[in-house]
Amino acid sequence: MENCIFCKIIAGDIPSSKVYEDDKVLAFLDISQTTKGHTLLIPKEHVRNVLAMSEETSQELFARLPKVARAVQKATGAVGMNIVNNNEEVAGQTVFHAHVHLIPRYANDDEFSLNFTEHEPDFEALGKLAEQIAKEVEA
Amino acid sequence: MENCIFCKIIAGDIPSSKVYEDDKVLAFLDISQTTKGHTLLIPKEHVRNVLAMSEETSQELFARLPKVARAVQKATGAVGMNIVNNNEEVAGQTVFHAHVHLIPRYANDDEFSLNFTEHEPDFEALGKLAEQIAKEVEA
Repeated sequence: MENCIFCKIIAGDIPSSKVYEDDKVLAFLDISQTTKGHTLLIPKEHVRNVLAMSEETSQELFARLPKVARAVQKATGAVGMNIVNNNEEVAGQTVFHAHVHLIPRYANDDEFSLNFTEHEPDFEALGKLAEQIAKEVEA
Repeated sequence: MENCIFCKIIAGDIPSSKVYEDDKVLAFLDISQTTKGHTLLIPKEHVRNVLAMSEETSQELFARLPKVARAVQKATGAVGMNIVNNNEEVAGQTVFHAHVHLIPRYANDDEFSLNFTEHEPDFEALGKLAEQIAKEVEA
């Protein structure tokens, strides 16, 4: 969809640190990196959020979730993970193309709220981390 | 699995306020009700969490997510929704049978953290709300 930043990332018009891609979904590092390895999994179909999503798209999107989550975990050494999807502004959604946050958690992690902290992105580090995660995705 | 509270709920050995059930999944109200309508969606298969989940189970579980989410939204009048899945203790997982939190958000909601507040459950109110949500599930 025009003016959708995630559609532009899918189209390659905006660069991203990709960790997984197939015909239905794309996964890439969130530039805010709430924790190291913070990844977004999105459907290639433009759909506003889960509340507006078809059963088929949800099935396709989340079928890929475990393998992307395990790849992030293996590459980062995370102990656990929060998987978060925000629907509508009142719930913290800021980009209106459905996306699932994969937020690795580490042993000595501080608690964090759903109001993700913004960080200045280090694109070189993001690119390297994305490569490490991509290598861990199960065939 | 023996000693798993969610397996006992699936088996009917522990009562719950059910909002949706089919051969693969069960959805019921979380007794803590972080917000009104707070619902848990779980696979009937006993699996620890998404990090340990097969692609097939994830697909079956999340295929049902949009319709359960919309039913919760319609019955409660929620404006938005946080969908949250915690993996391992470090991420806030306390019951080790995979579950997805559907947390309705309302216009004047306070922010909430992933550390869900415990409330004293009102089982009669939960039962009534579950019936209202169940009526809204798409065929």
